[in-house]
Amino acid sequence: MTVVPGFTGGTLDRADHLRHDPTALAATIDWRARLLRLDGLIPAIADDARLGWTTLTDAPDEAELILLGIGDGRAHFAALLPGLRHDDLPAMRNPALMGALASLAPGEAATYAAARSLIDWHLRHGFCARCGTATTLFRAGWGRSCPQCGAEHFPRVDPVVIMIAEHDGRALLGRGKGWPPGRYSALAGFLEPGESVEEAVAREIHEEAGVRIRDVRYIASQPWPFPSQLMMACVATADDDTLTIDANELEDAIWVPRDEVRRILAGEDGAFIAPPPYAIAHTLLTVWAAG
Amino acid sequence: MTVVPGFTGGTLDRADHLRHDPTALAATIDWRARLLRLDGLIPAIADDARLGWTTLTDAPDEAELILLGIGDGRAHFAALLPGLRHDDLPAMRNPALMGALASLAPGEAATYAAARSLIDWHLRHGFCARCGTATTLFRAGWGRSCPQCGAEHFPRVDPVVIMIAEHDGRALLGRGKGWPPGRYSALAGFLEPGESVEEAVAREIHEEAGVRIRDVRYIASQPWPFPSQLMMACVATADDDTLTIDANELEDAIWVPRDEVRRILAGEDGAFIAPPPYAIAHTLLTVWAAG
Repeated sequence: MTVVPGFTGGTLDRADHLRHDPTALAATIDWRARLLRLDGLIPAIADDARLGWTTLTDAPDEAELILLGIGDGRAHFAALLPGLRHDDLPAMRNPALMGALASLAPGEAATYAAARSLIDWHLRHGFCARCGTATTLFRAGWGRSCPQCGAEHFPRVDPVVIMIAEHDGRALLGRGKGWPPGRYSALAGFLEPGESVEEAVAREIHEEAGVRIRDVRYIASQPWPFPSQLMMACVATADDDTLTIDANELEDAIWVPRDEVRRILAGEDGAFIAPPPYAIAHTLLTVWAAG
Repeated sequence: MTVVPGFTGGTLDRADHLRHDPTALAATIDWRARLLRLDGLIPAIADDARLGWTTLTDAPDEAELILLGIGDGRAHFAALLPGLRHDDLPAMRNPALMGALASLAPGEAATYAAARSLIDWHLRHGFCARCGTATTLFRAGWGRSCPQCGAEHFPRVDPVVIMIAEHDGRALLGRGKGWPPGRYSALAGFLEPGESVEEAVAREIHEEAGVRIRDVRYIASQPWPFPSQLMMACVATADDDTLTIDANELEDAIWVPRDEVRRILAGEDGAFIAPPPYAIAHTLLTVWAAG
């Protein structure tokens, strides 16, 4: 089946060559260029489920511009505002932000995801990790360089595996502490240095639920901008359904039959409340439920 | 087909719980614990294609220990040596290192990959990216924390897509500047914030070779410890074989028929020299050549 995970399908051309060509970049900064409208990091939504944009005249003089890409022959930017601190950013659970995400068209959410991840990264990476000196933005906002030691730093993307173990037609789902009542989702965790995707899937399922798996199948991926993960969704086969839950990681874990997952995704009440459609866990459950 | 990419198949249990439990960790640091033997970052190879190990008495008093995991009931560590600087590390092309990689058993190379990526990360991340203060190692070497602002920093893993575009039974291969004579490989590039794996594959092939693709199929992944990438290997379908090469990225690109790829992987002379077996490009070509 064809799947379109949330935060994918952006239509801007990232125009990597402009990041390396300050003269060509400067030529795109004109009255036609568009500036992403953000309140903190909450996007302004236009009536047609699209992102709101304005012109560069709305950016303060001291703002630094991040090139999101080219679309309709115009450069599209996000502004890194002077004085904005990381602590000022809205959390993922902010109701206004969740409402905006639920109403954005998928390709529009992709553009927002890139902008949000980059702004967040700049706010948390103002100093050189190699020598401690304050760094400056370069490459049209896709990096920071150190005036002291010359080190160049690039935005982080942290790979995360998110997966269903299946056993006898049932899927293993878990819930973390503090999640909304009834919410269960696929298990997930950060991939570590020295691991493949397949090895991280096996390690995480064993660490969190005590289940050994084999035959990892990759399903799909999505960027997740809180702050900047790459979510890689997989299915794996478990030979045994005995659970040994790590209470530091999970509050509970359950095996749910395929039919019940299908009914819940169709909107019926059941053993759990499904993750929101823009989360790849929803995509993963949909693919698995379809068999 | 079953594939075992290079740098996968490590047998140590990473024992995440010990990273969070200093008392339990300290109890593993005894005469039975093993220390990875490294010369700079070049591994010492034992006669049986396994890594060389010694005891903790060989670590200088000021060394900091990184817990690689538990195996045979013993803790296995790598040492972060006092005074070692990032510039002292051997490059990937170092002949002694390449010789070591070619002779290590795959699971042993996986352990080396984790150790090398972590040591390299510590040497390049001694300062807090958020406030510029010198940080200290914590979590048994799997993180650094800032005594000034309290920020916690964790090792980077940078996702990279590596892929073959296929057209009419031929694979698109390219060569970078300065590569060994005759060497061609799959195209590759860093995944960026706000992209899925599938979108990064499409962008990179178009940027480097001017080819539009569809139907991205994930094949396999591997960690690549130079310094710490996650390589995700894919195949995609091109509808047109016209090449427009970006001279900043590639020196040349060619379409190679499946039969010829198969012959070259079998050791015969042909249009290119294959990447080494421990590179996932070799795995990817092998899977593709098998049809």
